[in-house]
Amino acid sequence: LKIDKDGAEFLPADEWTGKGLHEVFPLLFNKFGENVGISAIGVAGERLMSSAGICFNDIDNRPSRYAGRGGLGAVLGSKGLKFIVVDDKGAKGVEIVDKDAFKKGTKKLTEALTTHDITKPGGSLNTYGTAVLVNIMNEAGGYPTRNFSEGRFEGAAATSGEAIHDICNERGGAGKTGHPCHPGCIIQCSNVYPRPDGTEHVSCIEYESDWAFGANCGIDDLDAIADLIWLSNDYGLDTIEAGGTIAVAMEAQLAEFGDGPKAIELMKEIGEGTPLGHVLGSGAATTGKVFGVVRVPGVKGQNMPAYEPRAVKGIGMVYATSTMGADHTAGYTIAPEILGVGGEADPLDADKAALARGFQEATAFIDSTGYCLFIAFAVLDIPEGLEGTVESCNGVLGTDWTTDDIARIGREVLDKELEFNKAAGFTKAHDRLPEFMKYEKLPPHNTVFDVPDEELDKVHRG
Amino acid sequence: LKIDKDGAEFLPADEWTGKGLHEVFPLLFNKFGENVGISAIGVAGERLMSSAGICFNDIDNRPSRYAGRGGLGAVLGSKGLKFIVVDDKGAKGVEIVDKDAFKKGTKKLTEALTTHDITKPGGSLNTYGTAVLVNIMNEAGGYPTRNFSEGRFEGAAATSGEAIHDICNERGGAGKTGHPCHPGCIIQCSNVYPRPDGTEHVSCIEYESDWAFGANCGIDDLDAIADLIWLSNDYGLDTIEAGGTIAVAMEAQLAEFGDGPKAIELMKEIGEGTPLGHVLGSGAATTGKVFGVVRVPGVKGQNMPAYEPRAVKGIGMVYATSTMGADHTAGYTIAPEILGVGGEADPLDADKAALARGFQEATAFIDSTGYCLFIAFAVLDIPEGLEGTVESCNGVLGTDWTTDDIARIGREVLDKELEFNKAAGFTKAHDRLPEFMKYEKLPPHNTVFDVPDEELDKVHRG
Repeated sequence: LKIDKDGAEFLPADEWTGKGLHEVFPLLFNKFGENVGISAIGVAGERLMSSAGICFNDIDNRPSRYAGRGGLGAVLGSKGLKFIVVDDKGAKGVEIVDKDAFKKGTKKLTEALTTHDITKPGGSLNTYGTAVLVNIMNEAGGYPTRNFSEGRFEGAAATSGEAIHDICNERGGAGKTGHPCHPGCIIQCSNVYPRPDGTEHVSCIEYESDWAFGANCGIDDLDAIADLIWLSNDYGLDTIEAGGTIAVAMEAQLAEFGDGPKAIELMKEIGEGTPLGHVLGSGAATTGKVFGVVRVPGVKGQNMPAYEPRAVKGIGMVYATSTMGADHTAGYTIAPEILGVGGEADPLDADKAALARGFQEATAFIDSTGYCLFIAFAVLDIPEGLEGTVESCNGVLGTDWTTDDIARIGREVLDKELEFNKAAGFTKAHDRLPEFMKYEKLPPHNTVFDVPDEELDKVHRG
Repeated sequence: LKIDKDGAEFLPADEWTGKGLHEVFPLLFNKFGENVGISAIGVAGERLMSSAGICFNDIDNRPSRYAGRGGLGAVLGSKGLKFIVVDDKGAKGVEIVDKDAFKKGTKKLTEALTTHDITKPGGSLNTYGTAVLVNIMNEAGGYPTRNFSEGRFEGAAATSGEAIHDICNERGGAGKTGHPCHPGCIIQCSNVYPRPDGTEHVSCIEYESDWAFGANCGIDDLDAIADLIWLSNDYGLDTIEAGGTIAVAMEAQLAEFGDGPKAIELMKEIGEGTPLGHVLGSGAATTGKVFGVVRVPGVKGQNMPAYEPRAVKGIGMVYATSTMGADHTAGYTIAPEILGVGGEADPLDADKAALARGFQEATAFIDSTGYCLFIAFAVLDIPEGLEGTVESCNGVLGTDWTTDDIARIGREVLDKELEFNKAAGFTKAHDRLPEFMKYEKLPPHNTVFDVPDEELDKVHRG
C-alpha cells in the first residue's frame, strides 16, 4: 500500500516477501525515495505468527522501531498487507487551528523536558538510554530473571545501560548513545550498538529488549543480546514477546538458561518457519501450552515486560487490568513506585487501585496526543510541562481543555477499549495474574502477588 | 493410585511411564490381577498435551475405551497421576435402597432397548456399530469432509459401518462386530477390526474415530484409519481431537488431504514428543494458531465432532452452547434432525433454541445416572423405557422422581456447569461457532450457519 498526496494505491509486494527486513528496507527506500516512511511486517507477520509486530524505519531508515505488542504484524499479514509506504512530499500536513497556542504549549513542554533530570540533554535517558533502568530495577529486586523465577540478576551490571554506554565509547566507530529515534526528538534516548570492530551491530538496545533476551533468559552477554534483537528486527518480531518465549522454551528445557548461542538457534527456527519456529513465533502463552509449562508470566495471552509484579505491586495491577494484556506502557506506575517521579509509593504496598487507574487514564490521554510516552517523566513532576502538553493539543484542535480534562478524556478512551474487550468475551476473570505468582515467593523480597481480586476489580470499576 | 476395599494407596509408576499403553496394560493386569479396572494416561497425558484423554480397559482388558474429550489426561498428568487401579474384590458395591423398584425399572428399560430398531439385538448399532451413521450422515450432506470444507465424502461407503461389518466377516479371525465394550451391555455396538490376515488390528472403530481420521482427513482406507486409532489408543489421545488436528495440519499443508501414510507419520510425532508432536498433541485450536490456519472448526477450544452445523443447525446450536465446547454428546439433536428418533425436525431449520435446550437437559440427566447415552435412542421413542430409566434410579437412591423431573434435574446440572464456566471467564461471546461457518457455504446444500446470536443466547437463558 502506497499513500501520498494524490491518494492511496495497492502494489504487489511479492518480490519483498520471505526475506529479512534488513535486506528489504534499503531496496524499498531505493525504489520509493529516501524520505518516505515505511511500516512493514517481516516473515513473522507473513506467517501470521502472533508475536509479529509492525516495524517502522528509524531516523536512519533502519527497520528498528516497532508497534511491537499484540500481534499487529499478524493482523496486517492476515490482510495480505506487507508494507505501507507513506510519502508526505507536497502533502499539506496536519492543520493547526491556533498556531500561537500550539507554539506556547510546545515551548512549555520543551522547557520541562530539557529541565527534568531524566529527560534533559545529558540526563539519564539521553546518556544511558532506557537501559539505565537495568541497575535500578535490579537493585529494587524487581528485575525478572530466568523466566520470572527471581527478582535480581547477577549479570545486571554487565548488561546495564551504563555497560552499553561504556561499550559504545570503548569500541567507537558506529557506536553511539544519545541517538534520536525520530526527527525532532528532544530526549534522544536511542543508541547504536557496535561490534568489537566498531561496525554497527544493532539499533537499538532498549531496556525491554535488553532484559527480554538478557536477564529473562539468564544471558549476560550484550553481544548475544544484540544478535537476538537484530534477528527480531529482521523477522519483524516484538522483542518482549520473543524474549519471553525463549525464556519459556528454556523452562521447557529446549535450551539452558544463559545459553546465548542456543537462544540464537531457537530464534532462527522462527525465521526459517520450522514447526518449532511456528510455536515460538506464536508467543510465550502458546509455547507454554504446547510444552506443558506452568510458569508462563502473561495476562490475556501477552507476556509480561521487565517489571516484577511480586516486587512492584502497582505495575502488577496494571498488567492485570490493562485492556491489552500485560503492558507496562498502559500505566507506568514504576514512576512513583521506583523512580520517585510523580510522587512516591511503596512498591510492596498492595493498596493501589486508584494509582493503577489514574496512571492508565493519564496514559490513555498521552497516547492519544501522539506524544512519546517518555514526556511523562517530566510532566508528572513539572506542572507547566503538563499544561504545555494540553495547550499544544488545544492549539492543534481548537479545544479549550485544561489539565483537569486529562483523566476524563483518558477514561473515555479506556471505557471504549473495555467495551470492545467485553464484546470479545473478556471478563474480570481475565483481569488476573497467573496463578504461580500467588504461591511462588520471589527472591530477594520473598513476596507473592497478594493483591486481592476485589482490589483488581476496583481499578476500572472502583 | 490403587483403590480396593481396604482403601487407597499411592504407588510409584515410573516403570510404566514413557511407554505405549498397549505394552503397559498387560503388565499392569499381570501385576494387579485380571479383574481390576484401570484408568490410565498415556505419553500424551504425561506430557500435559491438551488432547490427552483418560483411557479405560474394555471387557477384554484392551486400552481402548476413553473419557476422551476436554484434555482430562493432561489434568491427571499435571497431578503426576499415571494410573488408577480399582480392585472391587470383596467390596460391597453400590447400595440399592429399593431392590424391587430397581429391578422393575431396569426390566422396563431392557425391554425398550431390546425392542427399538436402533438398539435391539441384530439392530443397526449391534450389527454395524456406531459407524452405521457414516452413510446416513453422508446422505444427509452433513458428514464433515476435509476439515469441514464439504458435507459429503466420496469415500463414505468404503469407510462405513457396513464396510467394517463386511471386512470383519470376510477377513474373519479376530474380527467381530456386536462386541460389548463392558460387562452386561445389551446394545453391544463395539467391534474388533482385523488385519487382512485375520489378526486383531484395533478395537474399536467407532463412528467418531472412523470419521475423524477418515472423511475429515480425506482418508478412505479403513486399514490406515485403524492404524491411526491404534496409535491414539497407544498414546492416550482423544481420537476426535487428534483427527481434527491432523485435518487442520493438512489445511496448513503439513500433509495432503487423503495421505494416510503421512497422517500416520504426523501422529508418530506426537508419540515421539517432537516439537511438532507437542503442537499436534495440543489439539486443533492450538495447531491452527501456530500455523496460522483460519478454518479451525472448534468451539471453546474443542474441535467439532462428526456432524456439520451448517447442514444440521440444531447440533450446531448445541456445539455453540455446550458447557464443554463443541460436543455432540451434550445434546444429540441428530436424533430428531436426522434419525427421526424422539420426533422429527428439519435439519436446516434454524429455530431450535428449545430443542437444543431440551436435549442438553435430558442428556445431563442421563449422564448423571451413569447409563450409556445410547439408551436415549430407545427411551426417546418408547415411554416405558424412559419411565424404567427413572424408576431404576429411584430404586438405587430411594427417590420418587417421575419423568417430569428429568428436565429439572438436568437443568440443575447445567446451571452448575454454567456457573463454573462463568467464574472461569466464559461469556456468551464464547457461545459462538467459528466465523468461517457464517460465510463459507457448505456443499452440497450450500448453506451457512445462519442461526442468529440472539437465538444461541436463548438456549440456556431463554
